[in-house]
Amino acid sequence: MSGNGRIFTQLHYARAGVVTDPMRAVASAEHLDPELIRRELAAGRLIIPANVNHPELRPTGIGLAVACKINANIGNSAVTSDVEEELKKLQVCVRYGADTAMDLSTGGNIHGIREAILRASPLPIGTVPIYEAVQRVRRIEDLTEEILFQVIEEQAAQGVDYMTIHAGVLREYLPLVQHRVTGIVSRGGSLMAQWMMAHDKENPLTTGFDRLCEIFKRHDVTFSLGDGLRPGCLADASDAAQFAELKTLGELTLRAWDQEVQVMIEGPGHIPMDQLEMNVKKQQDLCHGAPFYTLGPLITDVAPGYDHITSAIGAAMVGWYGASLLCYVTPKEHLGLPNPEDVRQGIIAYKIAAHAADVARHRPGARDRDDELSRARFSFDWKRQFELSLDPDRAREYHDEALPNDAYKSAAFCSMCGPKFCSMHISQIIGVNSAQEAVKAP
Amino acid sequence: MSGNGRIFTQLHYARAGVVTDPMRAVASAEHLDPELIRRELAAGRLIIPANVNHPELRPTGIGLAVACKINANIGNSAVTSDVEEELKKLQVCVRYGADTAMDLSTGGNIHGIREAILRASPLPIGTVPIYEAVQRVRRIEDLTEEILFQVIEEQAAQGVDYMTIHAGVLREYLPLVQHRVTGIVSRGGSLMAQWMMAHDKENPLTTGFDRLCEIFKRHDVTFSLGDGLRPGCLADASDAAQFAELKTLGELTLRAWDQEVQVMIEGPGHIPMDQLEMNVKKQQDLCHGAPFYTLGPLITDVAPGYDHITSAIGAAMVGWYGASLLCYVTPKEHLGLPNPEDVRQGIIAYKIAAHAADVARHRPGARDRDDELSRARFSFDWKRQFELSLDPDRAREYHDEALPNDAYKSAAFCSMCGPKFCSMHISQIIGVNSAQEAVKAP
Repeated sequence: MSGNGRIFTQLHYARAGVVTDPMRAVASAEHLDPELIRRELAAGRLIIPANVNHPELRPTGIGLAVACKINANIGNSAVTSDVEEELKKLQVCVRYGADTAMDLSTGGNIHGIREAILRASPLPIGTVPIYEAVQRVRRIEDLTEEILFQVIEEQAAQGVDYMTIHAGVLREYLPLVQHRVTGIVSRGGSLMAQWMMAHDKENPLTTGFDRLCEIFKRHDVTFSLGDGLRPGCLADASDAAQFAELKTLGELTLRAWDQEVQVMIEGPGHIPMDQLEMNVKKQQDLCHGAPFYTLGPLITDVAPGYDHITSAIGAAMVGWYGASLLCYVTPKEHLGLPNPEDVRQGIIAYKIAAHAADVARHRPGARDRDDELSRARFSFDWKRQFELSLDPDRAREYHDEALPNDAYKSAAFCSMCGPKFCSMHISQIIGVNSAQEAVKAP
Repeated sequence: MSGNGRIFTQLHYARAGVVTDPMRAVASAEHLDPELIRRELAAGRLIIPANVNHPELRPTGIGLAVACKINANIGNSAVTSDVEEELKKLQVCVRYGADTAMDLSTGGNIHGIREAILRASPLPIGTVPIYEAVQRVRRIEDLTEEILFQVIEEQAAQGVDYMTIHAGVLREYLPLVQHRVTGIVSRGGSLMAQWMMAHDKENPLTTGFDRLCEIFKRHDVTFSLGDGLRPGCLADASDAAQFAELKTLGELTLRAWDQEVQVMIEGPGHIPMDQLEMNVKKQQDLCHGAPFYTLGPLITDVAPGYDHITSAIGAAMVGWYGASLLCYVTPKEHLGLPNPEDVRQGIIAYKIAAHAADVARHRPGARDRDDELSRARFSFDWKRQFELSLDPDRAREYHDEALPNDAYKSAAFCSMCGPKFCSMHISQIIGVNSAQEAVKAP
């Protein structure tokens, strides 16, 4: 990726008409033409977050032209977890098919945890550098621009593939959140707001945006422009603060593109179902088609303990409407730091959402796995059904709870209906076409 | 409900302009005008399944004019469970807020289990009488129309509030399923098909539909017209068999209404997201506005072990589009009979779906609980947040996993972000409006 000592971004190469190895790898994984990948990248509609200092990476494409992707957040807090636990979570991410992961550590040993994760991760790794910056000072007020940019530079040199930068939280927008029910719910957004109020100065990530572009360009770090003013409850959804920030993110997108730096845009949050499509359209419009990276959205506030579900519903729908990367939410959201089992639950809920979105968007081949699993189901090939499941271990475990004996792995029934009431078995008896035959066109 | 020895249905009274006690109870529960309930009932757009022989019942309204409802399936299979376990499941249904429950027992002691459930249930109870009928004979071929109608009559006299009747599975439709990937996946549908093929006769539930109306009228049993030909996988969704049956169900609806018998219509199944709205519109159109009672729908086939989630996504969406009753799916779907914990998981997933649908439909007051919980969240009133949760026990359990001490129930942080990184705490520090203030209009 370097020529005469200079690093060039994937966006640079794409615009110059060069198909790079990462572009070819993405094209191959997506069964698409490398030239299409290059063209989408050049237009800003697709990104390949691939820091030149992250050689362990398996390149991943994020954008409307490729399959919908999911992100898993890991990382410790001051209350709980350490390097070993975080590496376990990373293994869960890889095993169950997260496409990207963010290390959101805010507790101790942030640098060490990130180093361990980066060196072990084939997935693009994202961070929110303000977390580490704040940990270097006693109080947020003590943070200086120099410390902030130093942390960002260090993380870029370490190999972080994308960084959440809350550069859209402007001073002038803060009055817009004063009457919200849940104020600012983005950690980074609230930290920037606190800093601005303490110093009576504009957001240093905004005033220093060109400097950020310089750093990002040198390592090919992708901007994940953070939605620091996202709504944290239904009552605050789609309000003036949210959309004021989104407009600014759209302007920053153009500035980053001018510097050949890749960009995606982070999105809400808590949004009722009837506002989801409007939110996606607005992002695509205001941000010039840059990939949309949404947190859920959660479509109701009333289910703490089950927010992987409230948010997977919103995620599936925005994936269908046009979001490109779905940031998972675990069952622990709002209640505590997720453990490895929570990470697994969150990932599967989001694999469901992303896959269903691909099916609904009629991506070529998206339904193949559904059809193959359904054929295995109809022919009582339990082992194949488990293999094709998003979580084979869980499927097998549930089946075996009542019928553990291996003989039942070819039985024409399960414990749900028993041998006499299995509709699929009866269908076979009465001669409904066997599963061996090719699936008809939809 | 009886005058000079005759029983009249809720539909009869509604048409006669009489507001009954059940109508008043529903109006009160829904904060609506009793006259509106009567009018909707008279038009067939709302039902109150309330068998006159089920005095334990707390009447529940199902229809577009009232809040979206959820149904939980319980019942044993030949492989597992008994009366005690099923009563435990019923308790879970009541505790976590199922609006109706179906006893789908297919194993032993079907009559006894149903009796125990009916006598203990304030929820409307539904059944699929063909299950018990088939259990009275050795082979499905041995079933006679007399046995079938005798079972239905017995169940009606026992107090069953609604019955799934697969009267839309006509002989002429069977060729339409021959080339499906998963054939007939409705147990009742497959049994009727097998019977028709063995006897070379039309569906006795269809030929005997007037007789059914007579029985249902005498006890005020509500028809749940079954979708015996629903698709069991994405590949079979929205096909000719499914819609041929739906058209017949629409015709049967008019015949039931002629007899003053209440009706709802069962719906799919497995349907990709982009076909959901069309499916709801078609049902409402072909079935003259009769309430739509959907099973999910599951929006992908690839997640056995997590089908409460794949289906809750579809359920939330069809609830928004216009379905009135959402039949839950548990994590054990396709794999085994649900246990009480599975029932709880399924119910919460569907409470989320139904509530989110109410919010998206802008039902007056639907968002109140979201707003109240969000205010409790912002003011770190953890106990109030748990209380307002759909599953308070689970929310508390997850929170306490890392911070069990009671002192943390008023802490301005949780283990997710720790004390320094709580955005809501920072919002308060910087003076974002406290949660005490009234929620602004959306």
